Amino acid sequence: MIKYFDYAASTPVSALVLDAMKSWQSESYANPSAAHSEGEKAAKAIQKARESIADKIGALPSEIVFTSGASESNNLALKGVAFKHLELKGHIITSSIEHKCILNTCAFLESIGFSVTYLDPGSDGLIASKELIAAIKQNTILISIHHVNNELGIIQPIESFGEIAFKNNILFHTDAAQSFCKLNIDVDDMDIDMLSLSGHKVYGPKGIGALYIRDSRGLGLVPLIHGGGQELGLRGGTSPTPLIVGLGEAVDSFPSEPNSNDYCMVMDSLNKLNFKRNGGSNVVPNIWSVTFESDLDVEKFKVNNWLVSQGSACNAMSNVASHVLSALGLEEAEARRTYRISLPPFYISE
Amino acid sequence: MIKYFDYAASTPVSALVLDAMKSWQSESYANPSAAHSEGEKAAKAIQKARESIADKIGALPSEIVFTSGASESNNLALKGVAFKHLELKGHIITSSIEHKCILNTCAFLESIGFSVTYLDPGSDGLIASKELIAAIKQNTILISIHHVNNELGIIQPIESFGEIAFKNNILFHTDAAQSFCKLNIDVDDMDIDMLSLSGHKVYGPKGIGALYIRDSRGLGLVPLIHGGGQELGLRGGTSPTPLIVGLGEAVDSFPSEPNSNDYCMVMDSLNKLNFKRNGGSNVVPNIWSVTFESDLDVEKFKVNNWLVSQGSACNAMSNVASHVLSALGLEEAEARRTYRISLPPFYISE
Repeated sequence: MIKYFDYAASTPVSALVLDAMKSWQSESYANPSAAHSEGEKAAKAIQKARESIADKIGALPSEIVFTSGASESNNLALKGVAFKHLELKGHIITSSIEHKCILNTCAFLESIGFSVTYLDPGSDGLIASKELIAAIKQNTILISIHHVNNELGIIQPIESFGEIAFKNNILFHTDAAQSFCKLNIDVDDMDIDMLSLSGHKVYGPKGIGALYIRDSRGLGLVPLIHGGGQELGLRGGTSPTPLIVGLGEAVDSFPSEPNSNDYCMVMDSLNKLNFKRNGGSNVVPNIWSVTFESDLDVEKFKVNNWLVSQGSACNAMSNVASHVLSALGLEEAEARRTYRISLPPFYISE
Repeated sequence: MIKYFDYAASTPVSALVLDAMKSWQSESYANPSAAHSEGEKAAKAIQKARESIADKIGALPSEIVFTSGASESNNLALKGVAFKHLELKGHIITSSIEHKCILNTCAFLESIGFSVTYLDPGSDGLIASKELIAAIKQNTILISIHHVNNELGIIQPIESFGEIAFKNNILFHTDAAQSFCKLNIDVDDMDIDMLSLSGHKVYGPKGIGALYIRDSRGLGLVPLIHGGGQELGLRGGTSPTPLIVGLGEAVDSFPSEPNSNDYCMVMDSLNKLNFKRNGGSNVVPNIWSVTFESDLDVEKFKVNNWLVSQGSACNAMSNVASHVLSALGLEEAEARRTYRISLPPFYISE
């Protein structure tokens, strides 16, 4: 039986979310910027979703800017800060195991004169705080380190990174695409200045995400998409009411229990095989990066006929060890025996 | 009876489009970049939509890059070209009656050292070709003039602009958010190098659009959203299968006949009032910018209880004459008596 275990790449839209979106597609479809009653109705629905998302991370609704997804949010965070410093340029600190959209944005910023330090993880996959501290320069304008790694599920100690950034008066951004709704996040407790999140990783629709921006106007980010004043002037384009309402409902209805059948099925299968789980002890329960001991184990695993990834979806088409597995020190041969099994995510109370 | 006549701001999602999107939300929801069978299935559906859109404008499927909407497309076109010239900078020609997302992007580019010429329309609302020719400089890198104005419905002679750009070896971009599917467009005949379009103006979903880019790789645009290699590396972020499939279906099923009831209702009402229609003779049939002769006419019009706009939705919140009406020479008092009635769009064969 074909089973989908690629939830870290994308989740289905839940029935509750689909239902919440419905009336905004073909009944109340007005442009939420319109000054008439139908426009105001849409704007109110958007505001409600904004409140749900803000509540989830201890932010204010006015600090949530809707985007097309986490990739756009990450680009807005990095370029938005960098473009404020276009003349004098500056230094950015990130890690070598970020999502490709962060790494490619950093490469672009390097090409126009910014400097970037890429911190390597230890063998446990964690970025060390003391290395972060050592990397800080006089002209460091931003630290951007993700919360949960999309290939390994490793949880980075972002509260330490936030504290270091705060003490050094540097902005701290985190890509929380894989942790939003799944782990406790409080932007104040964790000293987070910007946080990226995505809809389709939490049973919401594809094509919607958000960037939390502390004191969004005060920070003075340069917009990525200049427009007609939407989203406090920080992100142009007609606000997509159905997608935003869908994201709000996804947050409100995010499950707090795992799907036991799926978890049992995966554990039963893995128990019969020889493998090591990558990523050390501090990993989320829904992402399993496993390296099988032999090709025979791989063959046995493949009999399951599961839809899983080697690396992440974004690296799926390239047939080489991903930058994340390489950074952990896996050899090419081991990487070829490595699979990411990702299960239906749920909220993990601590 | 409340009637919606604000179709230029946003259209409902058609039943056919909703139906086409459905299975991609909660049944076939895999990430289209995933290497497994479900990912490939989604990628194929996206390719089919890409072909529909390309066909509509005489382009190749490989020249269509999906974005979150026309605002993003416009930003990608302008900044994508400008950032190629970040070191030496350059000159851009546009008009003073573009959508705010073009004008604000230009203002941003000016702030970082580019120069911009804003062509004013004549009293007929048209940009004159001879003024465009006169504005060209040695270092002009881009001409960007919209096809149909969103407030007035005026059709600009973009084929002339395209020809001028081509002869002068300058890239030509057009914002076709209000004309795509409604007017004949052939990017070759019209010498268009880049063209922006939007889903929610053609009975498709909100949150999706595209940028046509002639020989998309060859042009070497700098991406706006750097990502994991999606969309030929030109636009990062998980491709939103349901939205893209919806846009494709919207294009395939775009109506070729007006909704007669709606058109009769509007004409009947206007016939009883004193007004002038703005924009001259070369306007699309679905956008009516009307300036009522007196406040009494306005009062009589308001009795209809229609949902219409003053200016465009993007300017809706500001209580001043829009930049478009001002450019046409309307006084503040006239602008206050001006309404945009926009009817269900349809394809106008010529």
